[in-house]
Amino acid sequence: MDAVSDPAILSTLSVGLDTVWVLFAAFLVFFMNLGFAMVETGLCRSKNAVNILTKNFIVFAIASLSFWALGWGLMFGNGNPFVGLTNLFFANGGVDEGFDAISWTAVPFWAKFIFQLVFAGTAATIVSGAVAERIKFPAFIVFASLLVALVYPVSGHWIWGGGWLQTLGFWDFAGSTVVHSVGGWAALAGVLVLGPRTGKYRADGTINPILGHNMSLVTLGGLVLWFGWFGFNPGSTMAVGDGSAIAHIVVTTNTAAAAAILSSTITAWITLGKPDLSMIVNGALAGLVAITAGCAFVDVGSSALIGLVAGVLVVVAVPFFDRRRMDDPVGALSVHLANGIWGTLAVGLFAKDGITGSATGNGLFFGGGFQLLLNQAIGVVAVAAFVFGLSLAIWLALKAIMGIRVSREEELGGLDRGEHGAEAYAGFQIID
Amino acid sequence: MDAVSDPAILSTLSVGLDTVWVLFAAFLVFFMNLGFAMVETGLCRSKNAVNILTKNFIVFAIASLSFWALGWGLMFGNGNPFVGLTNLFFANGGVDEGFDAISWTAVPFWAKFIFQLVFAGTAATIVSGAVAERIKFPAFIVFASLLVALVYPVSGHWIWGGGWLQTLGFWDFAGSTVVHSVGGWAALAGVLVLGPRTGKYRADGTINPILGHNMSLVTLGGLVLWFGWFGFNPGSTMAVGDGSAIAHIVVTTNTAAAAAILSSTITAWITLGKPDLSMIVNGALAGLVAITAGCAFVDVGSSALIGLVAGVLVVVAVPFFDRRRMDDPVGALSVHLANGIWGTLAVGLFAKDGITGSATGNGLFFGGGFQLLLNQAIGVVAVAAFVFGLSLAIWLALKAIMGIRVSREEELGGLDRGEHGAEAYAGFQIID
Amino acid sequence: MDAVSDPAILSTLSVGLDTVWVLFAAFLVFFMNLGFAMVETGLCRSKNAVNILTKNFIVFAIASLSFWALGWGLMFGNGNPFVGLTNLFFANGGVDEGFDAISWTAVPFWAKFIFQLVFAGTAATIVSGAVAERIKFPAFIVFASLLVALVYPVSGHWIWGGGWLQTLGFWDFAGSTVVHSVGGWAALAGVLVLGPRTGKYRADGTINPILGHNMSLVTLGGLVLWFGWFGFNPGSTMAVGDGSAIAHIVVTTNTAAAAAILSSTITAWITLGKPDLSMIVNGALAGLVAITAGCAFVDVGSSALIGLVAGVLVVVAVPFFDRRRMDDPVGALSVHLANGIWGTLAVGLFAKDGITGSATGNGLFFGGGFQLLLNQAIGVVAVAAFVFGLSLAIWLALKAIMGIRVSREEELGGLDRGEHGAEAYAGFQIID
Repeated sequence: MDAVSDPAILSTLSVGLDTVWVLFAAFLVFFMNLGFAMVETGLCRSKNAVNILTKNFIVFAIASLSFWALGWGLMFGNGNPFVGLTNLFFANGGVDEGFDAISWTAVPFWAKFIFQLVFAGTAATIVSGAVAERIKFPAFIVFASLLVALVYPVSGHWIWGGGWLQTLGFWDFAGSTVVHSVGGWAALAGVLVLGPRTGKYRADGTINPILGHNMSLVTLGGLVLWFGWFGFNPGSTMAVGDGSAIAHIVVTTNTAAAAAILSSTITAWITLGKPDLSMIVNGALAGLVAITAGCAFVDVGSSALIGLVAGVLVVVAVPFFDRRRMDDPVGALSVHLANGIWGTLAVGLFAKDGITGSATGNGLFFGGGFQLLLNQAIGVVAVAAFVFGLSLAIWLALKAIMGIRVSREEELGGLDRGEHGAEAYAGFQIID
Repeated sequence: MDAVSDPAILSTLSVGLDTVWVLFAAFLVFFMNLGFAMVETGLCRSKNAVNILTKNFIVFAIASLSFWALGWGLMFGNGNPFVGLTNLFFANGGVDEGFDAISWTAVPFWAKFIFQLVFAGTAATIVSGAVAERIKFPAFIVFASLLVALVYPVSGHWIWGGGWLQTLGFWDFAGSTVVHSVGGWAALAGVLVLGPRTGKYRADGTINPILGHNMSLVTLGGLVLWFGWFGFNPGSTMAVGDGSAIAHIVVTTNTAAAAAILSSTITAWITLGKPDLSMIVNGALAGLVAITAGCAFVDVGSSALIGLVAGVLVVVAVPFFDRRRMDDPVGALSVHLANGIWGTLAVGLFAKDGITGSATGNGLFFGGGFQLLLNQAIGVVAVAAFVFGLSLAIWLALKAIMGIRVSREEELGGLDRGEHGAEAYAGFQIID
Repeated sequence: MDAVSDPAILSTLSVGLDTVWVLFAAFLVFFMNLGFAMVETGLCRSKNAVNILTKNFIVFAIASLSFWALGWGLMFGNGNPFVGLTNLFFANGGVDEGFDAISWTAVPFWAKFIFQLVFAGTAATIVSGAVAERIKFPAFIVFASLLVALVYPVSGHWIWGGGWLQTLGFWDFAGSTVVHSVGGWAALAGVLVLGPRTGKYRADGTINPILGHNMSLVTLGGLVLWFGWFGFNPGSTMAVGDGSAIAHIVVTTNTAAAAAILSSTITAWITLGKPDLSMIVNGALAGLVAITAGCAFVDVGSSALIGLVAGVLVVVAVPFFDRRRMDDPVGALSVHLANGIWGTLAVGLFAKDGITGSATGNGLFFGGGFQLLLNQAIGVVAVAAFVFGLSLAIWLALKAIMGIRVSREEELGGLDRGEHGAEAYAGFQIID
């Protein structure tokens, strides 16, 4: 080996290692589709299981095609502070220029693409759970396509694509806002336009709890999501370096989840009288959502605090939404919206210089003053206004054009029969 | 560090990285055993669930021992154009010579072995689904042993072990033919010798659909298989390089799956009147099987076309086999055989110079003429003749020697009771 | 690039690669929580499913907080031959000194921490299955906390933390003793203090088999555990090197599992008259537990022998414990305790110089004499005395302080209703 070739070999090794890491992380995030599918299906009724499974199976295909066709270019293309405009239609792997905002990672174009695609897919999946058990199958497909092709990429451009919030100094390492709040706001708009499930509220306005049909699937899904988050957060480094940043992020991520499980268990035990499994699983997810923005910027102790708050917040948020007739069968609003906001603001409280090499100023509790917290709040409000507003418009348009809610008869008989002519558990005796 | 040691350190780093990648991919492919187990079990009836689960759990153990005992040497050993003959019995990790056809990857012997083993195991698993709900448990075990020890390695030697098809210029990057069609032909022979399940055809010859008992498991399995394919296809590079090849393959693989989901959904909606979940899951698998041969040779646009065709093909193939009294409870023939052939031929249509560093000529649509397509067709026919013929002989011999089909009484009562003295869902009320 | 910077770049690449490998392995081991959850839930009755799922979901959170708060320092801190004493409370990532016993791996502090944490969590999960269907939920949580904070780290310090057994020459590569036997002894103490489930033994003392409610979940869990073991054993290298050690370990691990499946299937077929699925799944786990200690020290042929014995042992052990009124609903004692011991002793029989770079003497069958076997036996006995003794004391104390067993009424009605006010499968008709 001559001295001249060394740098080239080293560079190949380095980018090869980064690519393996990014792809590995992308696969884990892809696998979260299974987690969402099982949590959502398990928390709903067996008469709607095929419908929910189908939505969750198809949604990543829709996301893949939509993000390829348009979303990628809008989000990461060079353009203006509000939208990307490079290589806009059907992202072409041969064109790896014009994406300055993501040129900090050396991995090949298609590695960047797939990693960002699985994030976009997650936002779409979040919507799926909140609108379950009464949405028309075709309406969901169209909404998911538009969310990934148009809505998600624009707010994503603001924060990760070189847009105005990134310039302002808004921090969201792995997407508490970019992914989870965006999914949550889109879901909230859907929930409002759809209205609650038939039977969720009694004639006197009190809440009639609707039980999920399979807690084994819910638990399975919860553990798969936790597993997948080890790709979601540490993978967002998109580079390995000396490994210290990704190892740090793994531990903040896990600690937040553990702390949130503890606090959600205790909160549920106190407020509901029993350690409720669905609350505990949602507690874990709440902790994971909340640490997503700050996982690289906070220390392990702070991650525990962020998780503790998240676990309480999710248990409180479920009845909050329920009482306002925002009927969300799986708790997606409490997990992804409420804790997406909390996690984003928490960066403004707990960010600390010198964590994983970031050197961009401290949060409030580490002597940073209010500026960062203010930036975070501006981002939360701006994304809320844009995503909720545009999603509401899309849902209303779909309602007018194609209808978004199944008939009362179909809802009572189950969407499996109505939308799919199928049943999930042929041969089992099921009580209606 | 002195200059002399650098090359050694670089070489260790490089082979270390390649090994991590190959092992990671191997684990994902191993995990596909779970996907197959869940898809197959879910698509069959609850009275046969324990039997199917047991077959799927045990089949990789059988494959592991058979491939170690004989298959590896037959497939990858130096020998003649038809069969390998090196280090033939109980592959010895200390002997890493005599395997010229796989010396292009620098990873250690046992990394090559495990990666190739998980592929061999996949072929055996494919058979499992097609013969479900009426095959004797011991007969399946013996067939699977022989498939992995003898049948699979010989046709594999032709294509990946330095044999005559490889010399001819037959391209199958990750195994549309080597793995999927081989499994499919072996399954078809079994289906023909076994005959259809009791009750599948009415006295007047019309088809009586038999519903699967758990669509949650089917969906779970489908997502696990999709996840596993991110090892199957990109892992077949068996080296990382600068990451661009593996990233490209990840995206062609995923895009084919997404496109196939879209086209299978639409085709099922048109032909069956509803978006049928089992067709959609099989659509995804069809797209994945079809892109397996060409994932490294075609561009992303072509991968979408290959997937679109695959999704239509699988929905058309299911009733095609059904009408010919080839009773395949899970659609394995439509997924693995039909699309294994399609994917192999598609290389002859869509291969394109300069993709992922391959430089071996173009397919028909990129100015390559008919030669490559002809080579692909020759391979398809040769593998069909060999694998179907030998499998048929084995099935017939097993039928004569030990019997391969359970009694009518056992079939009606369920194989769980008959073969295993067990039930899958003790305590649940199940309708017969 | 100038010559001076090369060593630093190489070092960063090397530690980066090792970190990716260690984290990847850690995630796989984390994922084993899902495997344990599904195996345990499936092997128990549906009326206790929510309880078992909740225990398995929460146990890793408990382990995460306990190991962070105290366990890590006790296990890996520098101290004396019996216990570690460095950085004792709330492990601080900024302090990466004082952990000499684990300084052989260059990965960052938090990578070491998470990898060791997932092992600690495994020990706690093992207990969960053995005490299922009658333990009070709060009692399990407290026991699991103390196990991970106090018991596991101390015996772990002896073997992996620089303690007296490590000095003596006791070999346990990935934890047949450190993790599996420790979990097994703690479980045995719990089983003895709790007593058998109501209804397990008839008035005349004969055994009344209690069937699990979902063999699909059991099989799913078994395959997830097998998958996870590819992190557990090869990951314990905590470094990649030239890949040959990790590739070797992957193959010994898999071969032991395959051989154990074969022998457990045959043994169950002979002794029970049928190929029993739960025995086959436990057979696989038995092989995996048994190869865990020696996976890096034995050749592939020996791994097959170790697995063959394990598969027989587990089938024999289940009725052994049953007849002694040690009621273990999932076979955890047979899998983890019996085969943890067997695997540890097997190192003394089959260890062989020159395997994966280890050069520490041979086992009995490779000319090593009795010394190593004796060391292994001393370790087995010492760990048994310490862990069983201390666990027994903790269980008895918990019994006195808070009670550990639910009431007979609650047990008969199911812990789901009693402990959680919930049901796992709402809407399904379940026979009592």
